Amino acid sequence: MKLSTLAEKTSSTIKQGDADLEIKSAAGLDIAENGEITFLANPKYTPQIKETRASAIFLNETETVERQDIAVLRAKDPYLAYTRALRIFHPESETIAFIHPTAVIHETAEVAQDVEINANVVIGKNCVIENNVRIFPNVTVYDKVKIGKNSVIHSGVSLRENCEIGANCIIHNNAVIGSDGFGYAKDEEKRWLKIPQTGNVVIEDDVEIGAGTCIDCASVGETRIKRGAKIDNLVQIGHSCTIEEDALICAQTGLAGSSVIGKRVILAGQVGIAGHLRVGDDVVITAKSATSHDVADGKILSGIPAFDNRDWLRSIAAFRRLGEMAQTLRRLEKRLPESDAD
Amino acid sequence: MKLSTLAEKTSSTIKQGDADLEIKSAAGLDIAENGEITFLANPKYTPQIKETRASAIFLNETETVERQDIAVLRAKDPYLAYTRALRIFHPESETIAFIHPTAVIHETAEVAQDVEINANVVIGKNCVIENNVRIFPNVTVYDKVKIGKNSVIHSGVSLRENCEIGANCIIHNNAVIGSDGFGYAKDEEKRWLKIPQTGNVVIEDDVEIGAGTCIDCASVGETRIKRGAKIDNLVQIGHSCTIEEDALICAQTGLAGSSVIGKRVILAGQVGIAGHLRVGDDVVITAKSATSHDVADGKILSGIPAFDNRDWLRSIAAFRRLGEMAQTLRRLEKRLPESDAD
Amino acid sequence: MKLSTLAEKTSSTIKQGDADLEIKSAAGLDIAENGEITFLANPKYTPQIKETRASAIFLNETETVERQDIAVLRAKDPYLAYTRALRIFHPESETIAFIHPTAVIHETAEVAQDVEINANVVIGKNCVIENNVRIFPNVTVYDKVKIGKNSVIHSGVSLRENCEIGANCIIHNNAVIGSDGFGYAKDEEKRWLKIPQTGNVVIEDDVEIGAGTCIDCASVGETRIKRGAKIDNLVQIGHSCTIEEDALICAQTGLAGSSVIGKRVILAGQVGIAGHLRVGDDVVITAKSATSHDVADGKILSGIPAFDNRDWLRSIAAFRRLGEMAQTLRRLEKRLPESDAD
Repeated sequence: MKLSTLAEKTSSTIKQGDADLEIKSAAGLDIAENGEITFLANPKYTPQIKETRASAIFLNETETVERQDIAVLRAKDPYLAYTRALRIFHPESETIAFIHPTAVIHETAEVAQDVEINANVVIGKNCVIENNVRIFPNVTVYDKVKIGKNSVIHSGVSLRENCEIGANCIIHNNAVIGSDGFGYAKDEEKRWLKIPQTGNVVIEDDVEIGAGTCIDCASVGETRIKRGAKIDNLVQIGHSCTIEEDALICAQTGLAGSSVIGKRVILAGQVGIAGHLRVGDDVVITAKSATSHDVADGKILSGIPAFDNRDWLRSIAAFRRLGEMAQTLRRLEKRLPESDAD
Repeated sequence: MKLSTLAEKTSSTIKQGDADLEIKSAAGLDIAENGEITFLANPKYTPQIKETRASAIFLNETETVERQDIAVLRAKDPYLAYTRALRIFHPESETIAFIHPTAVIHETAEVAQDVEINANVVIGKNCVIENNVRIFPNVTVYDKVKIGKNSVIHSGVSLRENCEIGANCIIHNNAVIGSDGFGYAKDEEKRWLKIPQTGNVVIEDDVEIGAGTCIDCASVGETRIKRGAKIDNLVQIGHSCTIEEDALICAQTGLAGSSVIGKRVILAGQVGIAGHLRVGDDVVITAKSATSHDVADGKILSGIPAFDNRDWLRSIAAFRRLGEMAQTLRRLEKRLPESDAD
Repeated sequence: MKLSTLAEKTSSTIKQGDADLEIKSAAGLDIAENGEITFLANPKYTPQIKETRASAIFLNETETVERQDIAVLRAKDPYLAYTRALRIFHPESETIAFIHPTAVIHETAEVAQDVEINANVVIGKNCVIENNVRIFPNVTVYDKVKIGKNSVIHSGVSLRENCEIGANCIIHNNAVIGSDGFGYAKDEEKRWLKIPQTGNVVIEDDVEIGAGTCIDCASVGETRIKRGAKIDNLVQIGHSCTIEEDALICAQTGLAGSSVIGKRVILAGQVGIAGHLRVGDDVVITAKSATSHDVADGKILSGIPAFDNRDWLRSIAAFRRLGEMAQTLRRLEKRLPESDAD
């Protein structure tokens, strides 16, 4: 692809270099090769520009480059422009309509004409599989599941009864959608009595669910993952939670039941969210933190339990010297004898 | 079902409302509809009683209700009564005895007459599958596994060689029972030499294992999950652990090897338990905490490492202001000049 | 096996006991039976020597034993000698060359003669399966995957497109190798735009991967697990990470993208490693800790965020009394009136 075409398709402008330069792929600064375009998003990596073998680079509007032998495309957001370039060079493979003879599809399931259903897939009663859906091998779809158009279900996934998957979703390998919520009442003999988990999980359009992630169904009602939310690997979503649009949940994070995660929230890796609470829109909770309280819109929180990130940064700086602080305090206490008033 | 029948079956008494009122289902306060029964267990939700659309409610013996248009059932434990109601309205679906033709069952396996074995299930040599067991698609049962009567194995589960599953168990999707323990010795060249993992996992009756949970076999001997224990999703149980009766282990908790978790212990979400220790009966460890020491019966612990929950609550309150405390301490130190004695 | 033969094969010497004594197996101190050999590695368990039913024991060169009725083998490293004994008594079962008729193997795949491929395994286009590989049921191998000789792939595993597995590897049940990395750019409407994940995962020789563990492919380039690394269950390895030789990563640990874990590093359970950093060789990070910074070779770190383990031990000791410290500080402050200078 010519540099000029690439610029046009990525909403960027040629600042330096030949408009007819051929670009054949995109890659990061350190691994890009001749003929490839790269990007700089984080000034920390500016020194790498000198050494990159890339033939072109996306830069923001202020960054300068001293080398003349690299084409420069100005972009408002170089990372976004790079992502678009990568998507151009790596289009998704097309679905090839076929149903493998080993797939076991119940006669009551409605399956669109142009789906791809691979070996050993099992599809239960009264399921609906829409156009252009792609299901990889060894997937189990329980009864009454609906999968919306263009969605991709990777191998080893289990979709439990009554779940709904929207359009353009990707469910990665071995994820489980709609397993029973973890709910018990204690009986008179202090034994756990299982609370029936009769609800379902609804996943709206454009959602991606990571490998090994488990999303429990509601006891009554639904667990809902809204449009555009992205969930990483090995995440646990408890029963009756709601994940609002465009939320981003990183690996190994866990949510107890009935909590609501606001729009565009970012939960970093290994975060914990207790039950029955609301995390407001645009909140960021940093890695390994946990909250058992509601969080107001826009907050950045850290710690176990989580509080304001700036305060936390001060607290953890002091924590490193806490042993010393305790010693100092004991010394001061000794030298300031107890008064009668205390 | 008539209100009077429901009262009888849930050990509750009609305090208000028509004994002949028809109740058709049960649901939480916020989502219950006309014709349904709900419950109040946590006084925090008392205000919702005014707004619920439910036709009846389980209340404890002291809670009052001002509305006349809702039937009231008195129960010692409203949550337990509600659970029983939900179980009445949602009985477990019956096992339909059949073996799908794609199931691959070794000729030496003993399979009871009335089991349900779904598509693509693989059952190894010398397995024993008892009455009324239900195995969903794409399950792999290795050699010499025993599954007790009425147990349900969901799709994608792997049951490794020699494991025993008791009666009335539920193993949720993609759980792994009996994978190798994580054990190595360091050899003379500082490389890891695998310690054979030759033991098994024994799961007693009435145990529930969550989706994606992994329970390792013992190197020699057994890992044992005792009667009535409930384990949530994505939990890791290391080799040779023992989980005592009625313990409850929440999602993403991890146990290293050879530890014993006492009866009725509650480990909240994302807890960590080090190896070779004993957590006493009735202990509660709160979410995201970890212990590397034995814990005496009945303790409530928090923190990393975990200590008494009340002390922890004081410590974390102070931690939020630790930056400020450090500053105060420096100020005090400056104003109280070093004595010769220090 | 005669004691003398066992001594020879485990590089140990008979200190006490009959060279012709028959030893039939090996087990831990508490569960070893008559006719078995055990070991003592941790002096904490020395008192158990009095009670063990074992017929022989591996001891280091300084440990003494008062009993005359137990054979003693001296070993430089009793744990290593015991591991070798256990490996002798429990050799790995031999691969029986066969391909189950229900396996679905693409005609373009190159499969060696002597492999064992079990029921319902699916192998994609252009895969290469080398000698003596063993694949358990319900495994999915996507296109262009290579599996090196003697490797074992347990049931439920998904190997995604283009991944390479070395020789002598073990991949435990339901692990996922090569799922998409978690990468998105934010577009002009604040929605997440998926960054194509076009790279792969390369697993070198002698690697073991735990059950349920997920290793993401690189966006461009590769994620690499080097020779001899051992990874436990439910671990998350982000895209483009490199795990150096003989690193040991315990259960439920998570690595964000592009980090490098040095040789022989030990990451204990539930550790978190942020993205784009380097953990030096021989580092130990203790359980539940997390780092977002580079770590120099040989360090032992603890805490969130992690710092020197000895300092951390002092800090956590003080933390237990932090509520009290805060009170003391307030009292001191009151008694030392604010000076004008402050």
